[in-house]
Amino acid sequence: MKRIIYQGAQGSFSELAAIAAFGSDVQLTGKETFLSLYEALQGGQADIAVIPIENSLIGSIWENYDLMHQFEIQIVGEKLLKIEHCLLGIDDSEDAIKKLKRVYSHPKALDQCRAFFRSHPWIEPVVHYDTAGAAAMLAQTQNPEEAAIASCETAQLYSLRVLKKGIADNPQNFTRFLFAAKKGETKNEGCEDTRRSCGSSQCKAGEAPLGANWDVYKCTVLLTLKHEPGALAEVLQNFACNGINLTKIESRPIIGKPFEYLFYIDLQFQPSQKHLLEQALKNLQEITQSCKMLGTYNKDSSCVLHA
Amino acid sequence: MKRIIYQGAQGSFSELAAIAAFGSDVQLTGKETFLSLYEALQGGQADIAVIPIENSLIGSIWENYDLMHQFEIQIVGEKLLKIEHCLLGIDDSEDAIKKLKRVYSHPKALDQCRAFFRSHPWIEPVVHYDTAGAAAMLAQTQNPEEAAIASCETAQLYSLRVLKKGIADNPQNFTRFLFAAKKGETKNEGCEDTRRSCGSSQCKAGEAPLGANWDVYKCTVLLTLKHEPGALAEVLQNFACNGINLTKIESRPIIGKPFEYLFYIDLQFQPSQKHLLEQALKNLQEITQSCKMLGTYNKDSSCVLHA
Repeated sequence: MKRIIYQGAQGSFSELAAIAAFGSDVQLTGKETFLSLYEALQGGQADIAVIPIENSLIGSIWENYDLMHQFEIQIVGEKLLKIEHCLLGIDDSEDAIKKLKRVYSHPKALDQCRAFFRSHPWIEPVVHYDTAGAAAMLAQTQNPEEAAIASCETAQLYSLRVLKKGIADNPQNFTRFLFAAKKGETKNEGCEDTRRSCGSSQCKAGEAPLGANWDVYKCTVLLTLKHEPGALAEVLQNFACNGINLTKIESRPIIGKPFEYLFYIDLQFQPSQKHLLEQALKNLQEITQSCKMLGTYNKDSSCVLHA
Repeated sequence: MKRIIYQGAQGSFSELAAIAAFGSDVQLTGKETFLSLYEALQGGQADIAVIPIENSLIGSIWENYDLMHQFEIQIVGEKLLKIEHCLLGIDDSEDAIKKLKRVYSHPKALDQCRAFFRSHPWIEPVVHYDTAGAAAMLAQTQNPEEAAIASCETAQLYSLRVLKKGIADNPQNFTRFLFAAKKGETKNEGCEDTRRSCGSSQCKAGEAPLGANWDVYKCTVLLTLKHEPGALAEVLQNFACNGINLTKIESRPIIGKPFEYLFYIDLQFQPSQKHLLEQALKNLQEITQSCKMLGTYNKDSSCVLHA
């Protein structure tokens, strides 16, 4: 049985992403911090780690970009999850919301529900380390003056009541999760066998996450630039000339080299473009100071983004 | 007298950056949050706002990228500041550090001093909203079991003792600050008159920040891409072809359009390249979905980065 680890309490959005991708017939374990997640993966305690990498309202989750660089991991899949913030409470009376004094959740979740707090000024938002963790706490205290903001699925898990659904300011709230395996002995460079490399030993061909699109691939490359004007333009032109589309570029500081950057580049390509990607990656060795393939994987096309 | 506002308590690194750039003969006022800083600038309560935009260890300060987009501001200068974290206390005895129980500072500062806390395991790091604010608090409580991590300059300001200098893990710690004015009626597009536009009405020609380099200019452009493969490559190639060097690219999510991005691009050019930049900016109108000039200003060359 596949051993999957995620950050947060049971019922967290990371756990939901894992279930959406791999089904329930897996062994799921929550870890307290992102660092402990990577350590457990490296230590062989899990096959797959669930990594939230960006949210459509908040942006990139920098801690995970930095940890991907520090640990030897291989990206084996991705999953987009629609984030719906629900108000979960104890009381089932009609005026349950009127009786509330405090609402607990992760600071980012509280921040995404500003309009709700403006229109309910008697409720104080209180920071908790985790959305699902706030729900778990509430299930223990059973205090009708308190509520949590978490997913509706979490309500079921902890036998809480959904006092209000979809309380976030903006409904276009998606998180993109990556699935990472420990970097195996099989090298994943040059996109030699995309389906196989999308799996590593833990995730064999044909076992792609649910919703993954066999017809569109993605790959993530980590690189540093040469100290030459136009160096980044040359890198991007190399992909564009080969018809390979860039879906995201992210930069992070290089520690010890002020105002120099590491670049994480996500590319998208079709099976018929495999040889073009190979050519572009070969060129990349020449035109960058360093480059490293973090993985090729299937694009998740299961979400309707502009619903 | 120039009215300058910054975020944080008196003695904060933002205030130090303002003094380093404009001298002491200015009116300096601290604001509690970044949002209140922008609101005060927009409301005409100040001429210049000090905006920390990136740190060489932590990366970009996303909140300020997002606020730059929400408010109508004009970047009029930049300043690099070396960040030296010092341990400030009350007690002046030799074993003052041994007597400490708690050290207060901003979470990012605490995070940058991990090795210090590992080698002093009896001291608990405690989160405070501000480095200088932690020093101010200590000056009030006068508790010899407590210390703050802040700049050495802050020690003088609050009559504290420097128990240990330079306690950060990595000495290559620099923050880049931008100076922003309210967007004036004078349009700053196409780099028409760089020296004047570097000033706006609040900051006239010849009044550039101290350390500013008259011979190297920078400009910051905010843009969204066309929905076409190779769109970003075309934008960067446009600058590279015209010999204009890119020093930073940053992306932020577009709210309501999941996984589409705003790009902030910093460019560097010499006076002799003015016509080339103008050409590149003119082309930019054609090849992007939208583009906006956030300001042209003098590069700060006063820091030796690899000391």
